[in-house]
Amino acid sequence: MFITLEGPEGSGKTTAVEAAVKALEAKGYEIVRTREPGGTPIAEQIRNVILDKANTKMDPRTEALLYAASRRQHLVEKVWPALKEGKIVICDRYLDSSLAYQGGARGLGVDNVLNINLFATENTWPDLTLLFDIKPEIGLQRIASNANREVNRLDLEKIEFHNKVRDTFLSLAKKYPDRYVIIDASMDRESVAKATLDAIMNRLCK
Amino acid sequence: MFITLEGPEGSGKTTAVEAAVKALEAKGYEIVRTREPGGTPIAEQIRNVILDKANTKMDPRTEALLYAASRRQHLVEKVWPALKEGKIVICDRYLDSSLAYQGGARGLGVDNVLNINLFATENTWPDLTLLFDIKPEIGLQRIASNANREVNRLDLEKIEFHNKVRDTFLSLAKKYPDRYVIIDASMDRESVAKATLDAIMNRLCK
Repeated sequence: MFITLEGPEGSGKTTAVEAAVKALEAKGYEIVRTREPGGTPIAEQIRNVILDKANTKMDPRTEALLYAASRRQHLVEKVWPALKEGKIVICDRYLDSSLAYQGGARGLGVDNVLNINLFATENTWPDLTLLFDIKPEIGLQRIASNANREVNRLDLEKIEFHNKVRDTFLSLAKKYPDRYVIIDASMDRESVAKATLDAIMNRLCK
Repeated sequence: MFITLEGPEGSGKTTAVEAAVKALEAKGYEIVRTREPGGTPIAEQIRNVILDKANTKMDPRTEALLYAASRRQHLVEKVWPALKEGKIVICDRYLDSSLAYQGGARGLGVDNVLNINLFATENTWPDLTLLFDIKPEIGLQRIASNANREVNRLDLEKIEFHNKVRDTFLSLAKKYPDRYVIIDASMDRESVAKATLDAIMNRLCK
């Protein structure tokens, strides 16, 4: 089963999923945790180009193509082999992030960005997409108060950008109701972790 | 005017075009010489990922997306601004290389690769494409005898690969007869250089 985690930085998705993974492993499931962009040496090299703060001249279409390239390599080297072995793959960010960030917020158009991503993924869709939904103001406050995490180029975008990202994610959840579960990430940690585990268990037992 | 140079390594296109550029500059034309992949700092970073000999696990679709990303950045930062200033841009390799190498030789399909490149280029086609056509055996011999040039990952592909590249280029020349001029690169240097300059002058005087 292929599970993806979407939602802004500061939505607490990493913490929530760590708790869910522990619970799932205790039940005997084999889990592969991974993240985009990156996850393999080539994909990490591409990630470095994308997230380099010096690359302020990067065009939005270049960015969208780089994410698709890194996604492809990550699928081929990491996601597909693990799925083939019957493992549960839980991936931080996937295709929907490109649709929301480049398609929606940067204005390239969701369909245009989907198009290059169908080339990249050969129609590999997640079985379950957990959207950790939170108002951008709250998510960014959480990042700012976390001294361990370096602020990257995308964090520096203005608040309207993050609102557009959120709106696009919510419209994707409407468009793909079968695979999307929206988790209210403004709840306390324990409630978010519980909602995360519940959503995964529901899907596993389907 | 946007001119692209296509054909395998060892076809002598660089030498031929250097002579043509000198002749054109002597006539007062302003020329911008550039090359793909690369040509700007971000595009060069992407080029380094593509051509790194250690990246043997690179998937063909990843490669195609990286070329498209580097092409986009190069267009935005270098080609479009120069064309806007009325200069003649002469670019080593462009979209047709992706169609021939990834679409044809790697078997991804010319139309699939064209599709992601139309996203990258927003339909920016060359006014003139010079195809330096030569049998792969002769081109590779020329590379091997040139001690100044390092052999890269693509050079190491088998001869059938290079034959497929050539066949795809020749079929593209048939598909796009208005912009394609085929130059027989097996001729001696002076003849190739003359044919190159003639083709460019013909197009300029149209």
